[in-house]
Amino acid sequence: MAKVRAIADVLQRPGVKLLDLESDAYHNRSVITFAGEPEAVAEAAFDLAKAAVGAIDLNHHQGAHPRMGAVDVIPFIPVGGVTMAECSEVAEQVGKRIGEELHVPVYLYAESARVPQRRKLPTIREGEFEGWAAKIKDPAWQPDFGPAERHPTAGCVAVGARGFLIAFNINLDTSDVSIASRIAKSIRESSGGLMNVQAKGIFLEDKQRAQVSMNILNFATTPLYRVFELVRMEAERYGVGIVESELIGLAPAQAFMDVASYYLRLPGLSRNALVETRIEES
Amino acid sequence: MAKVRAIADVLQRPGVKLLDLESDAYHNRSVITFAGEPEAVAEAAFDLAKAAVGAIDLNHHQGAHPRMGAVDVIPFIPVGGVTMAECSEVAEQVGKRIGEELHVPVYLYAESARVPQRRKLPTIREGEFEGWAAKIKDPAWQPDFGPAERHPTAGCVAVGARGFLIAFNINLDTSDVSIASRIAKSIRESSGGLMNVQAKGIFLEDKQRAQVSMNILNFATTPLYRVFELVRMEAERYGVGIVESELIGLAPAQAFMDVASYYLRLPGLSRNALVETRIEES
Repeated sequence: MAKVRAIADVLQRPGVKLLDLESDAYHNRSVITFAGEPEAVAEAAFDLAKAAVGAIDLNHHQGAHPRMGAVDVIPFIPVGGVTMAECSEVAEQVGKRIGEELHVPVYLYAESARVPQRRKLPTIREGEFEGWAAKIKDPAWQPDFGPAERHPTAGCVAVGARGFLIAFNINLDTSDVSIASRIAKSIRESSGGLMNVQAKGIFLEDKQRAQVSMNILNFATTPLYRVFELVRMEAERYGVGIVESELIGLAPAQAFMDVASYYLRLPGLSRNALVETRIEES
Repeated sequence: MAKVRAIADVLQRPGVKLLDLESDAYHNRSVITFAGEPEAVAEAAFDLAKAAVGAIDLNHHQGAHPRMGAVDVIPFIPVGGVTMAECSEVAEQVGKRIGEELHVPVYLYAESARVPQRRKLPTIREGEFEGWAAKIKDPAWQPDFGPAERHPTAGCVAVGARGFLIAFNINLDTSDVSIASRIAKSIRESSGGLMNVQAKGIFLEDKQRAQVSMNILNFATTPLYRVFELVRMEAERYGVGIVESELIGLAPAQAFMDVASYYLRLPGLSRNALVETRIEES
């Protein structure tokens, strides 16, 4: 933990706000979340990567969570007035510097991927640190930046822009978890439903209710209201209604502006219509 | 305008953001909108009042807009994480200082009113500057702060907390403005509808559509979704549907969080669930 904290200390600078630092001994993995204007975030992300590459040797690392690098993945996520395109620009800049200055192979992933097979992190990470010594010799796995050779201690890293992940659950007025599972199956990407939606049915012991538990990976293209209405529609097949929904953690303001825009038939409603945005930007 | 700008210059200080300054020669009236943390806003509002009282003599003032004071009204409006109660505290503090230090009679109005007949500004303002010399002698019109005598040049002032006014219009799929007028009548406070809603029917020349044009004076107690659904319901009586709605100007984020909370059945959804709020407060 002293090592992790020393790395995170890199973020103590103007223009960057540390939002969260989560470490888990079992997974032997730390997630550092910070925010700021694109330029400050780019600088900080590079310095953070540099500190981690200097401090962590994956040859002596074990943990339950799959990983391919000392810095495993750096996602840049648009919030506030920042766009996905701006995040992708930052990802390219930071990726280039990590490759050239730290000599760690960089793979642009998610919205920044240059080829379809690099969009999903698990595909890139397959083989993990140990397997990457050989995997990188495959012409299909030439890095986007940096040397075509696994860094001896830091492995390689995925860098890219991606949407804010929203954890959104819907509780049904039934205790039959098989109904929640069937609804989940009909609405999720992996079985023919909505793109960018992961879903499963679970049983809530405390409430004795079945729940459709979801991750929405891109609310801009797959908005909350569409997910909600599709779950409602599928639930009707079983004579089941929706009791309530819940948000786990946070979501960007625009996700809810999109919901209000749909139900109030208010086209183009955005953060720019908020007095808070006007105050922030004045 | 030089006088108005000199008064507004008082706001050039840290902790306060000037959002808008609107002056109108016909009404001979200026509206200065600014924002900040409660303490900074209280200080700035007092200094602004002091500057205006020093610069404006209502004995030599004429304009189309009714007015009773050099500073006519000071509304404190909750935005961001600030509550109505905090705004009312600020109103009391500022009102007390204006009464005691500037010797201008102060009337607490809107949410800060201590008696029901002081809730509405037009009731207080009745008689205007000229009439107030006598009106203030009436025991029912003893000021909440300051001397029981009209200030010789600055008159008197209403100070209070009130909700953010949202200008919200709904366009119908008919050109029959009489239908919009009947819907407006059925949903507005003044004719038995929803509290805090002003509404009228108008005809949109450019779109050849009838519109229900509304002001929502307190979205916390009378949320946008309830207004929208009531308009939809009343429109159905005439076989008329809603084409779209529109927001004129700005609204606070919570107004749309309340809409999303209702339609997604997501209880207690607030600004605290926004990543932007977390960043702002970290």
